[in-house]
Amino acid sequence: MSSGGQQTTGLAQRFRAIRQASEDLIHGLEPEDLMLQGMADASPAKWHLAHTTWFFEQFLLQQDAQHQAAPVQWHTLFNSYYRTIGAPHPRSERGLLSRPALRHVLAWRQRVNGSMERLMAELEAGAGLGPSPQNCQLLATAELGLNHEQQHQELLLMDLLDGFSRSPLEPAYATPVHQDQPVHLSASPASPPPLGWWHHPGGLVWLGHQGEGFHFDNESPAHQVWLEPFAMGNRLVTNGEYAAFMADGGYQDSRHWMDEGWQWRHDRQVTAPRYWRNDGEGWQWEFTLEGRCPLDPNAPVRHLSWFEADAYARWAGARLPLEVEWETMARHAPCCDGQWLDTRHLKPRRATVVDGSPVVQQVFGDLWEWTASPYRPYPGFHVPSGAVGEYNGKFMSSQFVLRGGSFLTPAGHHRSTYRNFFSPRSRWMASGLRLARDAASL
Amino acid sequence: MSSGGQQTTGLAQRFRAIRQASEDLIHGLEPEDLMLQGMADASPAKWHLAHTTWFFEQFLLQQDAQHQAAPVQWHTLFNSYYRTIGAPHPRSERGLLSRPALRHVLAWRQRVNGSMERLMAELEAGAGLGPSPQNCQLLATAELGLNHEQQHQELLLMDLLDGFSRSPLEPAYATPVHQDQPVHLSASPASPPPLGWWHHPGGLVWLGHQGEGFHFDNESPAHQVWLEPFAMGNRLVTNGEYAAFMADGGYQDSRHWMDEGWQWRHDRQVTAPRYWRNDGEGWQWEFTLEGRCPLDPNAPVRHLSWFEADAYARWAGARLPLEVEWETMARHAPCCDGQWLDTRHLKPRRATVVDGSPVVQQVFGDLWEWTASPYRPYPGFHVPSGAVGEYNGKFMSSQFVLRGGSFLTPAGHHRSTYRNFFSPRSRWMASGLRLARDAASL
Amino acid sequence: MSSGGQQTTGLAQRFRAIRQASEDLIHGLEPEDLMLQGMADASPAKWHLAHTTWFFEQFLLQQDAQHQAAPVQWHTLFNSYYRTIGAPHPRSERGLLSRPALRHVLAWRQRVNGSMERLMAELEAGAGLGPSPQNCQLLATAELGLNHEQQHQELLLMDLLDGFSRSPLEPAYATPVHQDQPVHLSASPASPPPLGWWHHPGGLVWLGHQGEGFHFDNESPAHQVWLEPFAMGNRLVTNGEYAAFMADGGYQDSRHWMDEGWQWRHDRQVTAPRYWRNDGEGWQWEFTLEGRCPLDPNAPVRHLSWFEADAYARWAGARLPLEVEWETMARHAPCCDGQWLDTRHLKPRRATVVDGSPVVQQVFGDLWEWTASPYRPYPGFHVPSGAVGEYNGKFMSSQFVLRGGSFLTPAGHHRSTYRNFFSPRSRWMASGLRLARDAASL
Amino acid sequence: MSSGGQQTTGLAQRFRAIRQASEDLIHGLEPEDLMLQGMADASPAKWHLAHTTWFFEQFLLQQDAQHQAAPVQWHTLFNSYYRTIGAPHPRSERGLLSRPALRHVLAWRQRVNGSMERLMAELEAGAGLGPSPQNCQLLATAELGLNHEQQHQELLLMDLLDGFSRSPLEPAYATPVHQDQPVHLSASPASPPPLGWWHHPGGLVWLGHQGEGFHFDNESPAHQVWLEPFAMGNRLVTNGEYAAFMADGGYQDSRHWMDEGWQWRHDRQVTAPRYWRNDGEGWQWEFTLEGRCPLDPNAPVRHLSWFEADAYARWAGARLPLEVEWETMARHAPCCDGQWLDTRHLKPRRATVVDGSPVVQQVFGDLWEWTASPYRPYPGFHVPSGAVGEYNGKFMSSQFVLRGGSFLTPAGHHRSTYRNFFSPRSRWMASGLRLARDAASL
Repeated sequence: MSSGGQQTTGLAQRFRAIRQASEDLIHGLEPEDLMLQGMADASPAKWHLAHTTWFFEQFLLQQDAQHQAAPVQWHTLFNSYYRTIGAPHPRSERGLLSRPALRHVLAWRQRVNGSMERLMAELEAGAGLGPSPQNCQLLATAELGLNHEQQHQELLLMDLLDGFSRSPLEPAYATPVHQDQPVHLSASPASPPPLGWWHHPGGLVWLGHQGEGFHFDNESPAHQVWLEPFAMGNRLVTNGEYAAFMADGGYQDSRHWMDEGWQWRHDRQVTAPRYWRNDGEGWQWEFTLEGRCPLDPNAPVRHLSWFEADAYARWAGARLPLEVEWETMARHAPCCDGQWLDTRHLKPRRATVVDGSPVVQQVFGDLWEWTASPYRPYPGFHVPSGAVGEYNGKFMSSQFVLRGGSFLTPAGHHRSTYRNFFSPRSRWMASGLRLARDAASL
Repeated sequence: MSSGGQQTTGLAQRFRAIRQASEDLIHGLEPEDLMLQGMADASPAKWHLAHTTWFFEQFLLQQDAQHQAAPVQWHTLFNSYYRTIGAPHPRSERGLLSRPALRHVLAWRQRVNGSMERLMAELEAGAGLGPSPQNCQLLATAELGLNHEQQHQELLLMDLLDGFSRSPLEPAYATPVHQDQPVHLSASPASPPPLGWWHHPGGLVWLGHQGEGFHFDNESPAHQVWLEPFAMGNRLVTNGEYAAFMADGGYQDSRHWMDEGWQWRHDRQVTAPRYWRNDGEGWQWEFTLEGRCPLDPNAPVRHLSWFEADAYARWAGARLPLEVEWETMARHAPCCDGQWLDTRHLKPRRATVVDGSPVVQQVFGDLWEWTASPYRPYPGFHVPSGAVGEYNGKFMSSQFVLRGGSFLTPAGHHRSTYRNFFSPRSRWMASGLRLARDAASL
Repeated sequence: MSSGGQQTTGLAQRFRAIRQASEDLIHGLEPEDLMLQGMADASPAKWHLAHTTWFFEQFLLQQDAQHQAAPVQWHTLFNSYYRTIGAPHPRSERGLLSRPALRHVLAWRQRVNGSMERLMAELEAGAGLGPSPQNCQLLATAELGLNHEQQHQELLLMDLLDGFSRSPLEPAYATPVHQDQPVHLSASPASPPPLGWWHHPGGLVWLGHQGEGFHFDNESPAHQVWLEPFAMGNRLVTNGEYAAFMADGGYQDSRHWMDEGWQWRHDRQVTAPRYWRNDGEGWQWEFTLEGRCPLDPNAPVRHLSWFEADAYARWAGARLPLEVEWETMARHAPCCDGQWLDTRHLKPRRATVVDGSPVVQQVFGDLWEWTASPYRPYPGFHVPSGAVGEYNGKFMSSQFVLRGGSFLTPAGHHRSTYRNFFSPRSRWMASGLRLARDAASL
Repeated sequence: MSSGGQQTTGLAQRFRAIRQASEDLIHGLEPEDLMLQGMADASPAKWHLAHTTWFFEQFLLQQDAQHQAAPVQWHTLFNSYYRTIGAPHPRSERGLLSRPALRHVLAWRQRVNGSMERLMAELEAGAGLGPSPQNCQLLATAELGLNHEQQHQELLLMDLLDGFSRSPLEPAYATPVHQDQPVHLSASPASPPPLGWWHHPGGLVWLGHQGEGFHFDNESPAHQVWLEPFAMGNRLVTNGEYAAFMADGGYQDSRHWMDEGWQWRHDRQVTAPRYWRNDGEGWQWEFTLEGRCPLDPNAPVRHLSWFEADAYARWAGARLPLEVEWETMARHAPCCDGQWLDTRHLKPRRATVVDGSPVVQQVFGDLWEWTASPYRPYPGFHVPSGAVGEYNGKFMSSQFVLRGGSFLTPAGHHRSTYRNFFSPRSRWMASGLRLARDAASL
């Protein structure tokens, strides 16, 4: 969560834009929609709007005498998991918070926005005198708060999709997230390229964030890793390919599965990706933020658990990539002829027509890609002091890393060193799958 | 659920009044409040508004060509438990129905109201030609629908109280139910009378509904029962008396408890009535529809499970009354100097000042009173044919009967033969406790 | 649990016989078989042998200076549910008591037998001087202990059947319980008589135990009950008849079921009586204490839950008998031309050949018969003081009464006033089903 | 699971010794003890004796015409988790297998031993003609079977300890495992050395098994890993040190814990290592295979979950070692002045008196040491074909690696490359904890 020398002016501008973007997400929804908590892992949209606000008030405005803080109980209700501050409201009961009502949450957002803008202006004025350690700390925390809010923008959409998926009415989240890049493209602009392999000779490589620019604590320290030669797929696995796995009895053959995954698959009676729908004539539909849509065989398969991704890879004679393999490839994507930094603002499946043929330009950022790597600290990692230290560091058991960002990730929030993480059972995030192979097995 | 010769004019008038009363109940609530489902047994307020509407459409308007019915899926969503019609939406997931939005439910209510009023007018016109069996059946079903809606008015308030009780903010249901008889009287107008006993010599008595007037199927057939001599308390047990049971270690002494209740008390860690609140200085508060209020030692203790009521009675050297004992006493309440029929529109704890002294006039109707009787059919009971037969008859195992109505019961819905029933574990209804004794033990 | 003026000599003789009979039951079993606890409701055979011994030591030998008591911890391990004495070992963990080993339990049985015989001799000597209240109490408790041990003989066999049923090896309990009346008759000696109805005109009848002879506390006080006219089936429902219910979709039609039963049937995926076995060619087998046997269509159907019995009766256009109906009929069984007292030592399905035709002589005692009556106290019932008061009185919620005894019930332990009780979900006891009807519905 | 060129003669000798050692373990136990299954993760001792026998019959004797195989159902009962062979008997129900009785299992062991010895003799005879691929495969599988049986010897003792720990009688496993090295030394021969640190400069190291000698599949392929500089503790953390963590509120301070561990600790109400016993005067006792013993503050703390080990390390300002760090140190233990290969037959806490001072000679092998490494495949790992491929490869999610072996591990079964693995929640194995540190943090 270190932060380089941000321009506070730029920060204030981004602050306004990002805070506004959160509220834009609920445009057109019913008030009741904002109460939906489809499962304990998910949170109501209203809670997300409040929690991201709580974050700024808790970590930046506590000493601010001019700020009118929320009632003290709200600090329990909208604390997510920062136990050093106090016991949070039980996660599974967020859906029972009919109060505060939306309008009170939105008014709170305004108050916090005002105080934050004042604080940033003061920091900017002080910045003319040179950065003090305390100012640097405040700026870094503000930057963290914005990245945190962007994370919750994606969570809000994931959770809403989960909540809507519980209703037989199959409601559509009416407004596509980005005007020009709809959440779901019912007709793919082109067939995916044939599955090809990018090769890497192995050796010592660097893993983790280096240089300027925001990153989360878990992306550092940068360090060296010895890599065996390997190859990685040049695109995500598609719905059509995954359907072939299913048709081949993939869900019925224990040999493809981790033992724990096989148990999970039986206990939960899983027979398809989370949002596929079978109308009695086969798995021809997918529930999306635009409601029920035809399943596109050319689109990348999504909403898979790690167990399913891992089983598919084994069935396909391949494996999932290590996160170090993924990051190495993402930095020097052979097809891209360029640096990741140039391509970080990825959008899903954007096709460009070149000489009459559509070309998929970009190769990462469509879906969070499961890796073979359990989520553990990098060598030399130390948890930051204070409650902010709970941000990432206490989740480093029984989860796997995902890389790359998804079509639900806000613009500007993709990063090649970004480490997302979920339980191998989870499927409600926009997860997908890319294959890898040992060099020897090719 | 038989119905005598209703005047349809009166019926239409009552229809309008009762339907309006349901909507009055949500006045002043936030839209999010109507989504609250605090537990699987409870339902969101919006669902209650929709379900009572579904009842009329399902059982009375299906053949009505002029009626514009709800989308077909709504018939699954708002079916409560009538399996012969089709598998209902899972009860525990009613809180996940953000759609249809409230305004769509209210519009549906209007459409159904219009169609029902037209239907009743037709029946009235037809009634001039003499009642046909079919018309009688329709009128009876309409009457049932109104009584059903009144039941859900009470359920709506019970469920809302449960939902609000889950929030640390302790929201208040702002508008008292009845303007002149607030839900909670924080200061009791008078001390309760000393506990006295009404005596009955036993012998053959009649149990069950006789004569004209609406009643549910489970209140009939009327039949004879042989009673041993007994006595019954002249008032409900108070908070103060119940606190003495607690102070005497009542929750810690297994001898007072049914084995099943002892297990329940331990598994759920129950140490007080459901809505009592202990602020560290003792049980001095009670959560109510008006929010947190001081616990009134003179008010009747409420929100008890059957296990608690039964344990208290045993501790007090008494027992719960049988439902036949209760009904016998209620019909000829010694203190009332009159018939139950004259006193059916009971309100809670209404005090009248006579010669300067407040007098509690009425003796039943404050709280649903647990009885010692499991809920089973009366001799000769037969389930009505059709889906309506599921109304009461399929719940006749593992529940106990409660009698008398409560302060949440709508006016006009009390009846001395009324059989309410809940699991011995349930506490979220307005349940209370009256003692009884064998004659020999006095 | 009152006891008349027993002859202590007879008591000592019965004591020896009954204690021996318990040990006879484990003849031929493997030591491991005695550890089996197939479910929390069941107990290992070794535990039964120890618990019945504990009962005598706890309630009769505590003051006996000559008696060498078991280690103090055993009093926790082998206490079943008498909480006033102290918290018992958790029921579900009885199967984890590998110690004390069987030989130590058997040695304890011998020590307790010796002390008990000495005590009974002293009581007998004292009896010459006339019965003292204390002696009477001791004799009554000894008599209770013997009836208690007989109950556990039946439980031991039920629990063993449950335990063996969990093994794919389908072990047989090798030795038939009674040499001349095998537990299972694979070939029925005759077709059952056609289903006929015994009629009763109703009116005031007596319910409960009267006169001399041992009975449990819950069989008293005798009291009057008003009965409506009714009829009761002249025999139990057979496997063949029950198979017709199944073939007619009885388990798939919610209309036959209590709502709670329907839920149970779905949660547990129940589609047949507990021990029926389907080898892919239909339900042609039954698992019994003699291992897997062909299902006899003429034999009474057994190991039903109350929910199944109740559903069958409704499907058959009938209902279950009330316990007062059952007891009334059992006392004056029309076909028997005699008093119940003459026929109390019933054995299952004993056929006598008269003039070449087999005649089923006896009509009760084959299987415990589910009644329509929840298990509740009789009017005027009072729990005995002391721990013995926990024997029956604390189980009077959420259970139904069964009547009549079964082929597993020890000889001499049947009684027309006997009230057995189980949860409506339970099926591991030898339960069956007899139909009843209202007079009006015939 | 590769196997070098074993001498079959040596193999046959080891076969006899290892098979006998399993049976020696149950010497002096009651037959009922062998039925104990204290939890779903554990298995009865009798089951272990049968399962290890099944392994030889299943993988080596199926084609052997002279071998008299067990009844076909036993192949389901004693299959542990090899799903490609068929659905195994449910793990949690192994404790319900009273049959086959112990004597039948022992007879089966003899039959299998005879057939195996004959097979090995044939292989030996054939070996004179040079090793055929098939013979090599058979020999390798036999070797695997022996190592498998040794693993189950340790499991048998772990599971028995768990089973005995459920009994209030606190039974002692009477016979110490090894005559000269008792399972528990109630008085430690010497104080542990002060905690010191072994330093390693980092760089490229080799991980995994190389060269001849048996190893499991998951120990290969050997491969290079880049290591940062680090230090590792020179001994295990002691009971006394762990008690200081507890006294400092370690179990009550969420900052030390993984979020998942904090949840586990609360759900299971964990406040001490699994077998510590508090008699009201503090944690002064430990339940062991010798029954309840005084807790030795100088002995290494054992029966910790990964969560507890990880929390302790964080509290101590350190961390757990990576498995590559552990293996690197174990191969060249600085204090030992020698190769691991010379010290592989480690025994617990053996002290030698040198010049009057006791010296702890050996530094690994007392307890399985939790590492910071999730259990995942080594680069290039491939699951062997056939059912044997299920041995290790399907458990590579949500578990952590333990290294080093324990005092319950049979002699000759320790190995520096050995990878044991358990869920971070598990505590019933003989797990302990060694600290590590980044070089920079020292």
